[in-house]
Amino acid sequence: MPVDIRIRFGRAIRRIREELEINQEEAADRCGLHRTYYSGIERGVRNVSLLNIERISKGLKTSLPDLFNRM
Amino acid sequence: MPVDIRIRFGRAIRRIREELEINQEEAADRCGLHRTYYSGIERGVRNVSLLNIERISKGLKTSLPDLFNRM
Repeated sequence: MPVDIRIRFGRAIRRIREELEINQEEAADRCGLHRTYYSGIERGVRNVSLLNIERISKGLKTSLPDLFNRM
Repeated sequence: MPVDIRIRFGRAIRRIREELEINQEEAADRCGLHRTYYSGIERGVRNVSLLNIERISKGLKTSLPDLFNRM
């Protein structure tokens, strides 16, 4: 059973955030997202849409292909 | 002003669909999406979420990184 894409996406952005050595609050701020919503994305419980995916890739300074390559 | 990600995503999947030489109805069917919803995605008026992005990448037989590389 392949791992749910929401979980894979959450794990990928967590790894990227940790490499940036920032906490969730800082990451949420950089992405222009509410902290609790951002936390839910990392936990894989949010079905993130394109507009927020783009905010995250910009906020965490990673291209969209790279982001999806890490999943 | 960068092109809206929904429009870029729509253009990318249209190109992929045309390379597969299938119409929107066939593409929607392969992706397990309603035809009118699929058509809206290609027109860039839908803010597609992860679960449907994955259905599209599977339906159009293109990896997620490749799909986002074509945007």
